[in-house]
Amino acid sequence: MATILILGAGVMGSALAVPGADNGNDVLLAGTPLDAAAVSRMKTAGGVHPKLDHPLPGRVTPLAEDELTGAHVEAADVIVVGVSSPGIPWAVEKLNTLMTRERPVAFVTKGLDRVGPSLTTLAESLRPQLPKMKTFIGIGGPCIARELANRNPTASVYASADGQSAAKAFAALMATEYYRLSTTDDVTGVEACAALKNFYAIGVAAMQTRYPDATRPDGQSKNPTAAAFTQAALEMARLCERFGGRRDTAFDLAGIGDLHVTVGGGRNSRLGHGLGLGRTVSDMMAGELAGETVEGIDTARMLSAWLEPAPGLAALERARFPLALAIIDAVLRDEPFAFDFGGLTVS
Amino acid sequence: MATILILGAGVMGSALAVPGADNGNDVLLAGTPLDAAAVSRMKTAGGVHPKLDHPLPGRVTPLAEDELTGAHVEAADVIVVGVSSPGIPWAVEKLNTLMTRERPVAFVTKGLDRVGPSLTTLAESLRPQLPKMKTFIGIGGPCIARELANRNPTASVYASADGQSAAKAFAALMATEYYRLSTTDDVTGVEACAALKNFYAIGVAAMQTRYPDATRPDGQSKNPTAAAFTQAALEMARLCERFGGRRDTAFDLAGIGDLHVTVGGGRNSRLGHGLGLGRTVSDMMAGELAGETVEGIDTARMLSAWLEPAPGLAALERARFPLALAIIDAVLRDEPFAFDFGGLTVS
Repeated sequence: MATILILGAGVMGSALAVPGADNGNDVLLAGTPLDAAAVSRMKTAGGVHPKLDHPLPGRVTPLAEDELTGAHVEAADVIVVGVSSPGIPWAVEKLNTLMTRERPVAFVTKGLDRVGPSLTTLAESLRPQLPKMKTFIGIGGPCIARELANRNPTASVYASADGQSAAKAFAALMATEYYRLSTTDDVTGVEACAALKNFYAIGVAAMQTRYPDATRPDGQSKNPTAAAFTQAALEMARLCERFGGRRDTAFDLAGIGDLHVTVGGGRNSRLGHGLGLGRTVSDMMAGELAGETVEGIDTARMLSAWLEPAPGLAALERARFPLALAIIDAVLRDEPFAFDFGGLTVS
Repeated sequence: MATILILGAGVMGSALAVPGADNGNDVLLAGTPLDAAAVSRMKTAGGVHPKLDHPLPGRVTPLAEDELTGAHVEAADVIVVGVSSPGIPWAVEKLNTLMTRERPVAFVTKGLDRVGPSLTTLAESLRPQLPKMKTFIGIGGPCIARELANRNPTASVYASADGQSAAKAFAALMATEYYRLSTTDDVTGVEACAALKNFYAIGVAAMQTRYPDATRPDGQSKNPTAAAFTQAALEMARLCERFGGRRDTAFDLAGIGDLHVTVGGGRNSRLGHGLGLGRTVSDMMAGELAGETVEGIDTARMLSAWLEPAPGLAALERARFPLALAIIDAVLRDEPFAFDFGGLTVS
């Protein structure tokens, strides 16, 4: 039994509290300023997080932002950062203010960061910002938060570069009959895939609507989507290696597993459905996606400079990353998604 | 321009005639005795194959079983066997009767065969039966026949063990803007995956119905299916290597691509949906699947002896192939599908 501190009481942070508590740990669930309403609702008897279906287990203690103290951080054996990308500066500041001894920190947050002309994962760019972080633990895999909180079977992967020991120790605290965990030392690969899957989900989802089939209940033809899903997996594997991760990681839970779930629903997939119908990104973002964060768009911006370095090189990359470049073109030039299916594979 | 002879005027044989003819080849489409009605319908002006939406291109010549002569076979530069497994003996006999010179033969038909205590793919077991077959070409990838015939974008892979040359030559005859072909020399891997994906689709589809989510339009939760899809891919890769094929082939069109399409619809997936709801194989086969061939069931029978050799070994295999063994248990013991999700991945 341990004490787990989760920073961020959004849907994912709150959902992770469920297996943590079911496993007999004490879970402190600290909200950001944006989580104030959710936290105060969860503090009432039987109160349910606005994005979840049931109250959290009794072992979970919700904390408002101003209630989180150094004593809570001191008590924690492991800290989980469960915020979305815009919440990272808040979490970094909290940790640097309140942490007095080194502790492993696990991140649900995913993204890429620019380092000069190159790209890196949050695993790399956060390390120097958090001097008291003992080990960075990456969390990947197909996990819709509400389903995890409902104790639907969910498989995830925890990654740490210390020969997996921090990942294994944290997994031992979190694994339940319904929350199955594998571990890896390929932090870079897990983090890269977790960011890339949002991006590729846009392109795969576009194929779901681009070639309709009226004879099917969902109105979608299947061959183009399956081909694009496979192409996305192959390109993720190539990019994963370019980041310094392992190819196999793309073909596991953090890669194809998470891509599968992300194509199945969410904002990136909704954007893709619009693109497949011939709409533009700006049109979608001014319409039904107004005010929403579509993470795959940020990833597209990050990837573009990396994949289109010079005209000559760009042609080469176009052959290796046709789907990535089609998504980048649609996002950055705001043109209709013009994926040349003929470039998908070549004989 | 070449002449392509397709044996079998079922839905897949007929669909392959479309890119073949669109590419400027003459296509001879020879029906089995079971295709008599379809062939005679296609022979009438504007006649449409009963399982397709449009007439075939003018360059396609449908032939009834008794019209196929040695001259047709002699004229063919390449022969495609487009029958389903039960039609293989018919195709073998036709070819051995009518072939006078060596020719490459491409197979859509997929399956596994017993060779003593071991298993092999059709690529291996057909070779000695067809002395005039110059090269065996395997066809894999996510291809719903009707969608290909409707010229929806479709990606497939052609495989031949002669350093890909026969596969490349045949792909050059068949590839169009909508039918994209890659090639490989991993015939064994493509054939193994093509058989295995039917089998694994049963297990993945079972997860779609096993954990319902009433808040979604399709009523399905997503985490369990994505986890099972990933597990199926990993197990396919392991089995692919055991057959003598390459791991990567499972993570490409013939593996995850075809699995994606097969889970999306068809008889194996319908069987899986029933299992996920707690029904048994015999119940389903006596009910809505009466009279249908569910290929994944045959594969389960083939795999069982291979994966459950001895009690001690079986425990070892159970850790490496938990999904395969759960499917085998349901199919061979006719018990409810009792996949222990806890065994899916372990920390």
